[in-house]
This record gives sequence, structure tokens and C-alpha cells, in this order.
Amino acid sequence: MALQHIVQIILLQCIVGIFCFPSTGKDATCGYESCNKGKPGMINVHLIPHTHDDVGWIITVDQYFYKQVQWILDGVVAELKADPTKRFIYVEQAFFTRWYNEQDQETQNDVKKLVNEGRLEFILGGWSMNDEAATHYSAIIDNHKLGFEFLRQTFGECGRPRIGWQIDPFGHSREQASIFAQFGFDGLFFGRLDYQDKEQRMKNKTMEFVWEASPDNLGPSADLMTCVLFNLYMPPGNYWWDVRHISHGGNPDFFRDDKKLHDYNVDQMVKGFIEEVSKQANSYKTNHLIMTMGSDFNYVQAHMFFKEMDKLIKYVNAKQSEGSKVNLLYSTPSCYIKELNNDNIVWSTKQDDFFPYADRAHTFWTGYFTSRPALKFFSRSINSLSQAAKQMAAFAGAADNSTVQRALHHLAAVVGVSEHHDAITGTSKQAVAYDYAQRLSEGVTSGQVVIDNFYSVLQPKTETPPPAQIYCGLLNISICSVTESAEKFQVTLYNPLAKQVNYITRVPVANSKYSVYAPNGKTVIPSDIFPITAETKRLRGPRSKSVKNELVFDAVVPPLGFATYFVVPSSKFGFSAKEVQPSKNTVIQGKYISVTFDKNGHLASMTNTLTDATVPLQQNFLFYPAHGGKCTGNSTEQPSGAYIFRPADNSVRELKLTKWEGVYKGSLVQEARQIFGDWTSQVIRVYYDRPYVEVEWTVGPIPFSDQIGKEVVTRYSIPGFGNKGVFYTDSNGREILERRLNYRPTWKLEQTESVAGNYFPINALIAIKDGKSDLQFTVLTDRSHGGSSLNDGDVEIMLHRRLLYDDCKGVGEALNETDLVVRGKHYLLLNKVSQAARQYRPLAKEIFLKPLLTFSDSQLSPSDYIAKFSSNWTGMYRNLPDNVHILTVEAVPGTPVVPSPPDTTPFLIRFEHFYEVGEDAALSKPVTFDLESVLYPYKIVGVHELALGGNILASDVQRLKWKTKNNKSGEQNLAQHLEGNVVTLGPMAIVTLQVDILTNCVYWSRFYF
Amino acid sequence: MALQHIVQIILLQCIVGIFCFPSTGKDATCGYESCNKGKPGMINVHLIPHTHDDVGWIITVDQYFYKQVQWILDGVVAELKADPTKRFIYVEQAFFTRWYNEQDQETQNDVKKLVNEGRLEFILGGWSMNDEAATHYSAIIDNHKLGFEFLRQTFGECGRPRIGWQIDPFGHSREQASIFAQFGFDGLFFGRLDYQDKEQRMKNKTMEFVWEASPDNLGPSADLMTCVLFNLYMPPGNYWWDVRHISHGGNPDFFRDDKKLHDYNVDQMVKGFIEEVSKQANSYKTNHLIMTMGSDFNYVQAHMFFKEMDKLIKYVNAKQSEGSKVNLLYSTPSCYIKELNNDNIVWSTKQDDFFPYADRAHTFWTGYFTSRPALKFFSRSINSLSQAAKQMAAFAGAADNSTVQRALHHLAAVVGVSEHHDAITGTSKQAVAYDYAQRLSEGVTSGQVVIDNFYSVLQPKTETPPPAQIYCGLLNISICSVTESAEKFQVTLYNPLAKQVNYITRVPVANSKYSVYAPNGKTVIPSDIFPITAETKRLRGPRSKSVKNELVFDAVVPPLGFATYFVVPSSKFGFSAKEVQPSKNTVIQGKYISVTFDKNGHLASMTNTLTDATVPLQQNFLFYPAHGGKCTGNSTEQPSGAYIFRPADNSVRELKLTKWEGVYKGSLVQEARQIFGDWTSQVIRVYYDRPYVEVEWTVGPIPFSDQIGKEVVTRYSIPGFGNKGVFYTDSNGREILERRLNYRPTWKLEQTESVAGNYFPINALIAIKDGKSDLQFTVLTDRSHGGSSLNDGDVEIMLHRRLLYDDCKGVGEALNETDLVVRGKHYLLLNKVSQAARQYRPLAKEIFLKPLLTFSDSQLSPSDYIAKFSSNWTGMYRNLPDNVHILTVEAVPGTPVVPSPPDTTPFLIRFEHFYEVGEDAALSKPVTFDLESVLYPYKIVGVHELALGGNILASDVQRLKWKTKNNKSGEQNLAQHLEGNVVTLGPMAIVTLQVDILTNCVYWSRFYF
Repeated sequence: MALQHIVQIILLQCIVGIFCFPSTGKDATCGYESCNKGKPGMINVHLIPHTHDDVGWIITVDQYFYKQVQWILDGVVAELKADPTKRFIYVEQAFFTRWYNEQDQETQNDVKKLVNEGRLEFILGGWSMNDEAATHYSAIIDNHKLGFEFLRQTFGECGRPRIGWQIDPFGHSREQASIFAQFGFDGLFFGRLDYQDKEQRMKNKTMEFVWEASPDNLGPSADLMTCVLFNLYMPPGNYWWDVRHISHGGNPDFFRDDKKLHDYNVDQMVKGFIEEVSKQANSYKTNHLIMTMGSDFNYVQAHMFFKEMDKLIKYVNAKQSEGSKVNLLYSTPSCYIKELNNDNIVWSTKQDDFFPYADRAHTFWTGYFTSRPALKFFSRSINSLSQAAKQMAAFAGAADNSTVQRALHHLAAVVGVSEHHDAITGTSKQAVAYDYAQRLSEGVTSGQVVIDNFYSVLQPKTETPPPAQIYCGLLNISICSVTESAEKFQVTLYNPLAKQVNYITRVPVANSKYSVYAPNGKTVIPSDIFPITAETKRLRGPRSKSVKNELVFDAVVPPLGFATYFVVPSSKFGFSAKEVQPSKNTVIQGKYISVTFDKNGHLASMTNTLTDATVPLQQNFLFYPAHGGKCTGNSTEQPSGAYIFRPADNSVRELKLTKWEGVYKGSLVQEARQIFGDWTSQVIRVYYDRPYVEVEWTVGPIPFSDQIGKEVVTRYSIPGFGNKGVFYTDSNGREILERRLNYRPTWKLEQTESVAGNYFPINALIAIKDGKSDLQFTVLTDRSHGGSSLNDGDVEIMLHRRLLYDDCKGVGEALNETDLVVRGKHYLLLNKVSQAARQYRPLAKEIFLKPLLTFSDSQLSPSDYIAKFSSNWTGMYRNLPDNVHILTVEAVPGTPVVPSPPDTTPFLIRFEHFYEVGEDAALSKPVTFDLESVLYPYKIVGVHELALGGNILASDVQRLKWKTKNNKSGEQNLAQHLEGNVVTLGPMAIVTLQVDILTNCVYWSRFYF
Repeated sequence: MALQHIVQIILLQCIVGIFCFPSTGKDATCGYESCNKGKPGMINVHLIPHTHDDVGWIITVDQYFYKQVQWILDGVVAELKADPTKRFIYVEQAFFTRWYNEQDQETQNDVKKLVNEGRLEFILGGWSMNDEAATHYSAIIDNHKLGFEFLRQTFGECGRPRIGWQIDPFGHSREQASIFAQFGFDGLFFGRLDYQDKEQRMKNKTMEFVWEASPDNLGPSADLMTCVLFNLYMPPGNYWWDVRHISHGGNPDFFRDDKKLHDYNVDQMVKGFIEEVSKQANSYKTNHLIMTMGSDFNYVQAHMFFKEMDKLIKYVNAKQSEGSKVNLLYSTPSCYIKELNNDNIVWSTKQDDFFPYADRAHTFWTGYFTSRPALKFFSRSINSLSQAAKQMAAFAGAADNSTVQRALHHLAAVVGVSEHHDAITGTSKQAVAYDYAQRLSEGVTSGQVVIDNFYSVLQPKTETPPPAQIYCGLLNISICSVTESAEKFQVTLYNPLAKQVNYITRVPVANSKYSVYAPNGKTVIPSDIFPITAETKRLRGPRSKSVKNELVFDAVVPPLGFATYFVVPSSKFGFSAKEVQPSKNTVIQGKYISVTFDKNGHLASMTNTLTDATVPLQQNFLFYPAHGGKCTGNSTEQPSGAYIFRPADNSVRELKLTKWEGVYKGSLVQEARQIFGDWTSQVIRVYYDRPYVEVEWTVGPIPFSDQIGKEVVTRYSIPGFGNKGVFYTDSNGREILERRLNYRPTWKLEQTESVAGNYFPINALIAIKDGKSDLQFTVLTDRSHGGSSLNDGDVEIMLHRRLLYDDCKGVGEALNETDLVVRGKHYLLLNKVSQAARQYRPLAKEIFLKPLLTFSDSQLSPSDYIAKFSSNWTGMYRNLPDNVHILTVEAVPGTPVVPSPPDTTPFLIRFEHFYEVGEDAALSKPVTFDLESVLYPYKIVGVHELALGGNILASDVQRLKWKTKNNKSGEQNLAQHLEGNVVTLGPMAIVTLQVDILTNCVYWSRFYF
């Protein structure tokens, strides 16, 4: 009976929508064919009309749309329509999609024509131009995938971006370049790199080079032609005819080309421009130059800019009849790249990244690695929610459920916006930061829509409606109305990882007497009751003072599935949670790890009990007094601010440990609680069967009354640890890069800031290795930070910042989060170097893709509940190899890349080998698996390998070939990982598949046990 | 032989060009028919998209065109094309003509269509929006005629402006309104009037009224419906979607009308706008409101402004379905006026003018009446040159000589630009003032082109080419290269007045022995040699120190004709110029007037020797220390500046007479020379047969070292003169208005500035009358000034100003003409009131239309010269009545208003009755004359009366009718002055005629005698 209902519902959900094929681009002339051609034997200057539209910064994304972007796109389209030689590129799909959807059919058709003829070209194609220092690779992929999908379904192949365009982000990660290569991109352009680096590149004519973005793992398939722009991304000299530029004090000369009038200036304008060309030509290798004709929110008056460029082209090219060798043309970055490629020369290479970025001696853009730590965490959390939600919608057969798809799109969109390089970076104005946070919180609402749908489909429908599953967004500060108020409640955990996880679940409760039942409704499992900390009480505020405890239990959750645990008052049952009391003990320990404290409560040592490795381990909270100053244009006056980290004098001040609250030893976890003055505290935990030390830090509000800006760091120190100035940080959560103090791999650094100039972005972890003991100390984080190892044995991570001065980079405000308390977690690992990766690699996945907890307050007994509803379900029946991660599972709404056969649903699935070459003796090896087996019992009707962006068949990608000294063949095509149904992944490889699965939905209701 | 040549040349000149008929507007739907219609029973809000484009101000006119105007017109035309409901008005033809001529044929056709459909409407239609306080009526007429002619020949009737649009000038003259009425305009809009006046008008709902602009003379035909704009000329509240506004700090709300997005604001936007409507509706009588949607150089991004207005209209009007009575529509000032007219109510009236303008208690815009006195004079001089040049080109048959016509157009255009309300007013930046001056000097070059053509045609061509006629622009400071260097030379005077004049001619010469021959080449006439003054020496600078004398003789020049006088070294002839030496005499006198000085050299008395009236007459130079201050927004802080006159404390300081250089008594003129310190001097002259005292003042450079801004005045005082606080000033050189101290005719003035608040513009004269003696003391000026009579018997005229502070009205500079010395002339008359007009009226014409002197250096003897060349010629063979002035003679190039018959040349001729009702017992009477007679021997083939602007038949003008208490019939049609060939003119009437004259050119070479 219940089953019948389910099938009916599911069948309804499974109806595949009408395919709406977009123009295929077959008759179109887009792509390299559509480029305006240069003239042989001349310096061909590619004028690139473009606008850089921040997805929020000084004002919010919606405000920018209304105040600027709509005018830009309205006007640019009109200009392009009027003249087939004109070109324009558009980048940020968060804006473009909104604008496009507001247009009438006629305008949409006009736009399609422009796209099909290569006159309007989408570059980058991300929802936003994401930051590269504080972003997780999954968010970067999704940010682009969201834009790509709109472009693919709207414009077909002519809408596919082929160029990375990271002109504004403040430093460049190698992983971003690798991802671009895996998208099938032919090149990358950016504007910001260290001024010393730029200087030598200009001198050596290595402004353009092949970036080997995964030299050890992916090889040439991750090579990316990279072009550093000469002029950041602005027009040369005063040839900048934009109303916004003018309103910001720019005073471009306009062509005054009527000789009858005063001030005829054509000769002078032409001469000046040719001088700009010569200047730029000195720094580049080929006879092609790219000139960016635009900037932030330029082209609000598109006609002005274009009309003046028309005249520029006309008058400069007219000089050719007098022997000038300068030829101007409207172009795009891809057309420019194609011309570079035609030159077929051997390019220089680079293997490291572009962090940190300094534009002057004392202006290191390393503050934003940490700025707004709460927003950074929020963005990552909602990204995790989005990953889980996509899976849930796929398993619930909601590919064509428009409500669910809207919610998913919204979730991805708010994350995409938050990844913008003035959002997650913390470099927007405060009001805009609030808007980003509001958007992310709206993402929670959309997540709840998907959750509701998932559980309503996956739980058998009976006469009793299934209990609502409530997502509690504030669990990290122990707030959840369901658990606080209900006498009995259920905790349902959805596990977005493709392996079973054990998850120490922690819920705020009103009482202290509870029993926790396993999903079978019968077994009472061990649980502890911990009093919530004083600090947590402070954070919860006055709203639910009665809640004094957290109930802790260890949940087991199946892969890509859920499990429900039952919490009931213990008075009615025999077994109940253990109430944990503080003790004066100075050791906490579990099966794998133990930690000791000195008599004052400071951390003293850490022991890996399996290997019996012990190190002295200290930890302190410190802060750097921030440099003040004025925006004088003088680098020595540079203040510390939202972007820039600049300590006043590189000295630190310690926050004193003021209260040692003792040690709490539960059955699952032991913890020590420390208080550091009025605004900092810490809980250090060791779990009975986890290999790490968990450090939960709480900082803020940073006080301001002493008129000193503060940059608060935590510093873990292992005296005597011999890492010799070398440390390791991850690149966007994927590959790990070696860092060295006061050193850059490609030029002789003149170090001008001994602290800020040694800070690097941490997205997942930072590690140091001791040559003598062969030990690796690794700190994993729950968000992005800036960090370093300034002294041997130290790992320093910046946690929070509050500053008095604007740092002169445009935001016009001091970074001053007045009341913000930030709480986060670090995970410390100590192990032999050879054993480290097999700990930190899976742990990083678990931190990022934690189970999605929802709460319900059914008053049924556990056994009555499981009689009516599922309490355990999985979407993954077979184990994946240990070194393979499922990065993505989602159903494709609308038209897939390859039309899917009848009665099938196309899924987008990404598998990832998540070890690097040499990281682990076993797990770093290539892995092969059969999809039929792994995806059992889903019936696979077809499978196609796509490029990483999911928007084109991998085999259809023909990347341009670039010769380098390492790669004389210049073969840089996408790697292929699929043969038949068999996938083979080398280290760090990601395969993106369209898997057409028979729309047989019955298995969706199978129980895990 | 000579005659044959002449005929050939003239015949060539007489070829009439191909007529290019513009679209007649017959099929067009322009005019009131094309208006968007309001809704009955609602408040209809007429949104008026407009831009106010200053013809130079902060940057030059050419810079504005390139930086702003081209974008405005490009964009507006695109917007209008896309939507037939949209409207736009354009005003300044200096810009529009330039833009239009740059367009391709397709765009020009598009524009014609828009004009023909009333979607693009020309309002005002002047070359610039002229100032009203410092301009001469002939310049105002020509300024508009120049624009009208372009519009008529390009667009036909649909291009004819019907509305005065003086939204920005700083006070409004009655003559300007009268001229508008005579153009056939239906209404006038402006923004600036005294704040007290505005307050009471808002309260009384008399913001709209019928201005009786010539109540005593022209009557209802000069009535003009006048609308005071509520909001100066800007949009209400924050509904101002303009990029320039935004770049100046404006922050308009944009419609955020997608409910899915953050910050949806439609309800709030609609509510706010309806509040603005209610606020404005309280001050107006009808159910129609005008809202100006634009401002200075607005619509550079036209699409933005229009798209937001589209939404405003849509969302506000949507409220009608919920009972709102507010209806928005795109409209134009003429469409609005038509709706007012439809209401057919009785309107209030006004008979005085809107001077002076104060926008706050201490902010009287009376400084600009005098600012940049040299530029004011330069503009008037070049206007005079333009008037003469038009006559010369007409007489030379140059209607189709494109070189001459281009030169004439250029002359008129530079004058039109210089009449702009930030040009002649002196309120531009210094750099722009230099540009205006440069343009005017380029006008001299164009004038020379016309002069060259005229004399080459009018002088018989012999084997000896006629001598070049060189115009010397710096004669007023005694610089002319021809007369300074040539041993013998000729002075040719062209007289642009329609009556013979005697002109005391003054030329700088190198020696002292000269004889002057009359045009007959035989008669030696009396002449004097005066040493040039020390002051003149200073002004001439080092460049020609050798020149020490001025040769003075009395030339007789025929009406609209020329006469050549011959200057030869006197050694060869018997009679020579009298060398004048200084004496200690204290009286200078002529036939009609005498003047005495006290022992210190101060002016002491003036006697009209004919009537034997003597008055004590004193004169002093004084200055007001200027008020300083900052732009705080507080009126008490108001500084004196380019616009604003504000003495520091209303006290004056006297410039001491430091040197009395004695009296020089020549045979034609006697003069006294005075020195007042280092930077002021004066020469007072009495001529042997002239009725006035000529006062040549020289002021500057005003010193600055004491850090006191100075406003220098001359004050003539007649102790005991009983004018009782009443004085008289002219309105743009035409009608004369009574002024009263501390009084305004239409409201009870609260006087807040006892000096600046009593200043009025003087364009031609200022006068006081003594009731007891029935004497009138009149001072005529050679340029515009500010002036007053602050105490009985005083006539005070401000001459020059140099200031330390910007006056916060946008120019952003202090008025600081660092090295400027200004020289000018006053003409003092003393006579019975009843006899005054017959002196000052013709004298004013003579001052304005002085003979045009050119110099040649033929080395022929006078008798040889006259054997080869004309030395005397007239274009006017019959005397005009004494009260009639020929205001205009010009040939019409292109298509005349009425197609002219074959073999005729259409002339535009204006006759003016230049006395007011009651000014003179005889001359104020209406006058009738026959054109055939007056214009003998020109053969008149056809004659048509036109409106004053020369762009429409007077009989075709159907002005809207407005009822007032004085004019219950509401008949305000144009007066008709022509019956057959007979013209009848009442006092102050101007008749504008198209006279088709047989292209029989032979008479053009007739000699006068």
C-alpha cells in the first residue's frame, strides 16, 4: 500500500520535460572563425571592449544591476546590432542571466544572433568572477557550471566560454588555472600580480607564458596559456571614454575631429595612442597586443565609448597610408589568444602560483585571506548544503520539479554570488556584506525546500504525514528550536559523502536525561551530556537561557544516504546519556590521540598513540596591532585594511589565558576549556575513535577602545620542529603547494614585509614537516584563512580582524565588524609524513561535506516511527575505492549535452581521485572502476565524458596547442578517463560524466537495512 | 570699361541658388495635434524630458559638444525612434546644428520624421539661451533668428519653435518677453525669480500669468503667457536618473521592480512621486502640472533616464485602477501650454520685469550685470560688426556667395555664443572667457571677409586693384598698423545707420603734420592732432612707442553707405591738422554743452547751452570692498562673485584724483584728462557740435595686494537733484523701465541688501529726472553694466570687478581678471524731460551702430584715388522718417519664407519705430511710409510681413488667446504693419519684411555724389 503510493509519486516526478534545443551553432560563425583579422607585418592592437561588473562591492548585486548593469547591456547590445565589426565580451552570468530574462523575445533573438556571429562573446562565464584565495574548488566549479549551463541551454555551442578572465582577483591560485584547463579553456587573462614579478616579466617579455597548473598530477592537460595584462584591465593612458570613469574624476580627451572647431586634436590623439602601443609592445613577444578598453561598470554609456573607439581605429589606421605599422581592430580575448597561437612559438612556463599579491612594497593583499571569517564560513556552509541538496534532488527524481530546481538554482546562485572576489574576500562595504549574508541565509530557505521534497519522496507516505525535517542553521552556537523545546525528537543526518561516516552529533537540549536510539529504533547507543560552555551561553544571548546542555552521540550514516536517530527522555528507558562533569585532569585522550596541558591550562603536548609519536605542542592567541595611515599614494603610509595586511611593526601581543575551566571527559569525547580574557576562548577535544585533535576557537567582538586595529591569530608551536622555513598550504582544497619564507620560485624576492609578505591562503590545511623525525603536523580548517609558519615549528593562522583604517583600495571603509564573534574549528593531525595524507585527505572531505542534520519532533516512539517511515536510506550501494570521492551527483534539468534516450534521466556525476602523486604509497596510485558496478543498481543506459564544466563532450574539446620547453609536442588536450563504462583516474583527476539512468524509480525507496 | 567689369562681376554674384524646399510639414502631425493627451478629471503631470546645454561655462562650447552634447543627441534620437510616445525638446541650436550636420543622411531623415511627428520639438530655438541682463535687443533677435533659419530651412514649419524657454538666465527682462511675443511664441517658461516673489506666487497660485511685456506701446500683441517652473528646471525629488547628476553626487533611486530581488521598491517610489505631485499641485491653478525631467547636460545616457520614466509612468498610472487621480504623460512645454489654454480661465498679469534676481536674502545676482566688462563690450562690438556686415553682403549681392554667407553665419554664430547666459554675463571660468574672446576675434576675421567682398564689388575694378580695407580691432586703445606706419592712408567709414551721420574719427598716427581730404578728394577738412594720453600709452604697451598722437576729424558718412577720407602728410599741402596743447583752463565747451572743473580737476558743473540749464555735476570713482565667505549654504556667508554682488558692508572707498592733466582744446573737440592713482583715469570730452559730454573711463588692472575684492563704480552726482528714489533704465536697449529704491511693483519687498538689492541692468542708458526743474540727466553707455541711483541726484554705474572668492553658483572660480584694463565711454545728456528722448534715442543708435572704420594705404593722391575708386556710396537714397530705424538689412540665402519670383533676390528688412509712447511730442507718434519710396530705386517685386524672427508669415501666426482682466477678449495676435507697400508703425513697433527685389544689380555701383 505504502509502496504503491510511492511509485505513483515517483512516476509523476519522473516525467521528462520537453527538450528545448537551443541553436546548435552549426550555422553560426562564432568561434575563432568569426574574429576580425589583423594585418600581417603590423602591430595588431586588439581593442577589447569589456566591462567588469562586480557582483556586489560598494553597493549590492541588485543595486549594481539596477544602477549600472542593465544600462550597460541595453546599450552594448544596441551598439553591437548597429555595426558588425564591433565586439564585446560579457563575463558575470549573475547579471547577464537576469538581464536576458527581462528582455522581450525580439531582443533575445537579437542577442542570439550576436552570439552566433561572435560579436557578443561570453568570457569566463562564471556566475561571478570568483575569488581565488578563499574559495573551495567545488564552489569554483559550480560557480562556472551555473553560468555555463545557462549559456549552453540558451545559446548552444556559440555561448560556450573558452577563456578564463580573472582580471580583478587579488592573486591567482594554481588550482583555478587547472580547473580552467579542465573546462577546456584556451587561455587565461589577469591583471594583478606582484609588482616585482611584473617588472621582471615585462623586462623578459614573459608577460605571456604557459602555466603548468598541475605539473605533478594532471600534466599537460592542465597547462593553460596565461596572459598578464599590461594595464591591469583598464584602457591605456587617457583613452578611456567612460561616463563612470569621468564621474570618478577621469578626464579623457574626446576626439575633436572637426578642423573648423576650436581644439582640433586628432593628430595629437593618434600620436599619443601610438606611443602607448610602443610602450606596451616592449613587454610582449608577438606582433599582437591586447588593450583592455573598459573597467568596473564601464559602458553605462556604451555609445560614447564605442564611437570614440571607432574614431580611434579610423584615425590611427589612417596613418598606415603614411607608413605607420600600427593596426587597430575590435577583438576579444579569444581572438587575441588565437593569434598568439598562430605564431607557434615556444613559450616559457610557470609551475607555482601568484600568491601573495603585492602591488607595492608595503601593500600585501594578504589581509583578505581572513577578512570577514564568518562570511567565509557561511559561504562554505551553504556551498556544502548546495552539494547535498543537488544529490537529494537527484535521488528524489526532481529533475523536472520546477520548485525544487528553482530552489537548487537559487542555492547555487547565492553561493556563486558569495564566491565573488569582493564577497567571500570580505572586501565589500559592511552593508553589502550584510546583503551577502542575507542571500546566503535565503539559500537555507531554498535548501529547506529541497530537503522537504527529498524526505517527502523518500519516506513512505502513510496516513500519518512524515514529520517535517527542520534544518537548524545555528547549531554551531547551540541553537535549534526543535531540540530545545520538544520532549522527544529525531535527528536525521544526510551524508553527502560516498562513504559511510561516523559523525559525532551535538545537539542543544533543555534537560540532561535523554536516551538516544539507533535508526533501527531498538538499540540505545552511548551518549554524553555536556554542559554548554560559558562562551556559548554568551553567544546564544538571552533568547533561550534555559538550554544548558549539549547531547552528544556518534551517528553512523550511510553513503549518500540518511539515518534517523531518536532522542527520548531517559526516564522511560533504562540507558541514558552520561552527564559529564569537569575535572582537574590535564590530559584528554582517545584511541588514537592524546593531548596534555600544563598547570595553567595551556596546551603542552600531543601524542599520536598509535605511532607513539609525541611532540611538545603549544598554542597561543596573539594579535598584530594593525598599521594605520592615510591614503596618500605612498606605500610607506599603507594602512592595514580589508584587503591589505600590514602589521604596525611586525610585533605581536599575546592574549593571556585567564581561566582554565578544566577537562570534561565523556564517553565519546574529552574536552578542555580555556578562557583568554573577555573575548576569546577555546575548547580542545579528543574523540574516542578519531585521529585528530579538534580545536574550537571563539574570537570576538574584537575590542576597539584602545584605538588599535587588531589582527588576531592562533599560533601552534612545536619547539624544535625542523621545518626549516618550509610549509605547505593547499590550493583551493585540492593540490598542496610548498611555501618557503621570504622566497618566490620564479624571481629573487626583495622582501619588504616579513610577516604580511609570508602569508598565504589556507583553504583546507596548512602543514609543516620535520625532516629528522619524519613527522608532519597538519592543521585542517573549516574555512579559508591566511596563515604562515614564520618560525620553525610554528603554524600561524589568522582568525579574525578588526581595523580602524580603510586601506585605499576602493572600499572606502575600515573593516570593522563591530559585534561579530567568530567561532570555528581546527583539526590537528600528527603523523609520519608517509601516513599523513590518508588522514588529512579524507578528513578534509568530511569537514567540508559534513552530514546535513535535520530535526523532527514526531511524538511517535522510535519503534512506531520506523514502522511508518524510513529511518535509514542510501543512494550508494557499492563501495567506491578509498581514493575516489564523488564530487557531484545531480540530475540535469532541461536538455543534457547529449540527448538522453527515452525513459532515462541524465545525471551529472563527477568522480575525483583525491590523492596527489607521491602522497600515499597505496592511495596515490591510479584507480580503475566499473560504473555499472559502482552505480549498482542504477541502470545505466548511456554514459558520456564531459569537460569539467559539464557543458561539452570531452572529446569535442579541441584545445589550442602551445609548445613549451617541457612539452615540445604542445599536446594539451583534455585527459579522457572513460572507456566503455570503465573509469580510470590518475592522481587528482576528476571525471565528469553524463550518465543516462533508466527512469526506474522504485529503487529510490530501498532501505539501507 | 570700369562699368562693364562691374556689371559682369555683379551679374555673377546675382545668380540665385537652387531652392531646396524642406518638408513643408503639410503631411506632418507636429504642433499641438501631435501632443500626448491627458485624462480628464485627473491631475495630468506633463513629464518634460529636456537637457540644458550651456553654450560654454566650465568648459568651452566645443568641449561641451564633444564631451556631452553629441552623446545626448545620439542617444535621445535613438530613444525617440524606438517609442512613439516619447518626447524630447531641444533648445540650443549652436549645438544642434553642429550635431545635425555631422549625421548621415539616414539619421537626418530619422530626425526629420521625429520632428514632423512632434516627437522631437525645438523649443526656444536660439543659437544660445541668451542672457537677458547684458544683451542688446538686436543680438537677442539675431540669436534666435540664426537658429530659426536653420530650423526653417531644415525642418519647415514643424521645426518652428513656439515657446520661450529661459530656464536658467538669472533674471528676466521684459523686452525678452516682448521679443518672444513678436516671434509668435505662445508661452515662456523660466526657473529663476526672486525668492520672495516665488513664495507669494506659490501661495497665490500666480506661478502662471500673462506677462504684458509692452503694456504702453505694443499692447496685447506683446502679451506672453508665462509659467514659472516649480523646481527651477530639475526633476522633482530624487526622480532624477541622469549619469551627470549621479556623477555630481546625485543618488537617485532606480526602480527595482522584480519582486524576487532584494530591495523591491515600486510602492515606495510611486508613493514618493505622488507626494511630489501633491506638493506641486498646491501652487498651480489647473489640473495640469509640468515636471521638468532634466538639467544641465542631462541625457548623456538617454536610455537610462527614459527607461526609468517609462517605469514611473507605468507604475504611477497603474495606481489609477486603485482610484489614484494622478496621470503621467510624456509631454513638451508647448503641449502643456496648450492644455493650460484649453482651460480658458482668466489669468493674472504682470507689467514689470524680473530684475534683480535674488535666491536668498544676501544673494543678489546683480554682479554679473558688470562682470567681465571687456567681454561685454567685445560681444556688442562684434554684434555691431555683424549688423554692418549683413548689410554690406546684401548690397554686394552676396546672397549666394558661399564664402561670404559662411562668414556672415560665423559672425552671427560667435555673437550668438557670446550672448549665452554664462558668456556675456562673465560667469564662465576664465579659460572659457578666453575662448569666447577668441571666438569673437575670429568673428573679426569673418567680418574682414565680408568687408573685402563688399569693397571689391562696390569699388570699380580697374587695372589697379582696389586697396585692401583693413579693419582695426584695437582702435579704442589707439592701435592700427596701417595708420601708424603708412605715410599716407585712407580712412573708409561704413555707416550702418539709415541716416547720414557725422562721426568724430580718431586715428593713431606716427607724426603730427597731416592734412585730411574729404571724399571728393579736393576739400581739406578741419582736423586736430591730440597727444595720446599717458594712460593710452600704458595700454599700448611697448609695441609702438613711437605713436604719440591721434588725428581727429569729423567725417560725414551717408546712410547705409561709405565715405573715404584721405590722410596725407601736410608738408605738401597748405592746410594741416591743428596740434593741440594742454592748458590750465577749467572749462571745456562746444556749441551745445559746456562742462567746468574745480581747481583740483574734479568735474564741477554741466550746462546745456541751448536751454541754459546748468547743474552742479560731480563725478567720483569708488569701489565697494567685496564680501568674502565660504560656500556653506548659509546666505549670510554669501561671497561676492561672478554672479553675485555683495559689498562687504555697503560702504564705499573713493579713488583719489591724483593728477589733473589739464584741458586740451581742439577745433572739433575739447577734452580734460584726469588720473586717479595707478589704475584709473578719465578723459572728459565736449564736441563742437554734439549735445553730449563724452566720458572715456579707463580702469584696471584692479590691484589685489590688499586682499580686498573690489567692485569699482563711477558715480555722477547732481547735488539737489530731486529724483526721489526713482530712476530709469532701459530693457535690452528698447523700452525704458521705472526703477524705485527698495521697491518691487508686485510684492512688498523685504530689502536685505541696500546696495546690491537696488542694482539693475543697464544696456543703453540710465536716467534720473528732477521734478522741480523738469530736467533729465541721462547717461548712455557703450556696453551693459549694473547700476543704480542710491541717493537722489546720483547715477552710479559699476565699471569693473575683481574678486577673491567664488560665489558658490557653480563656476568654482573667483572672478579674477588679473591684468585686465577696461576702457569705455559714457555719454552724458542734460535736457528738459520733454526734449530728452530726441537726444538719447538717436544717440543710443549711433553708439551701437558706429561707422565701421577700415584703413587702406594706397599711395595714390586723393584725386588719383577718386579717379579709379569709389570714395562715397550709399545704399539708401531716400530719407526715412526721423523716428524710424532700419534694424536689419540682409539678403536671405537659400529658401525664403515665401518663394520669391524669378529674377528677384529676397531681402529681410526690419524697420523699427524707436520711440515709446509719450517720450516725445512729435516723434512718439505713429508713422507711415511707403516702401517703394523709402527703398527707391530698388525695384520691389513682392513684399511680405513676417514675424519678428523672420521665419513665418505674420499672417500665418495664430497665437493662443489668453484672457486677463486687462484683455477680456484674449486677442493677442501679432500686430500687422503692412498694407500693400505701405508700412505703419506705432511706438516701439518693429516690422519684419521679406522684400523681393529685382536682381538688377547696376544701381549697386551708383555714387552718392
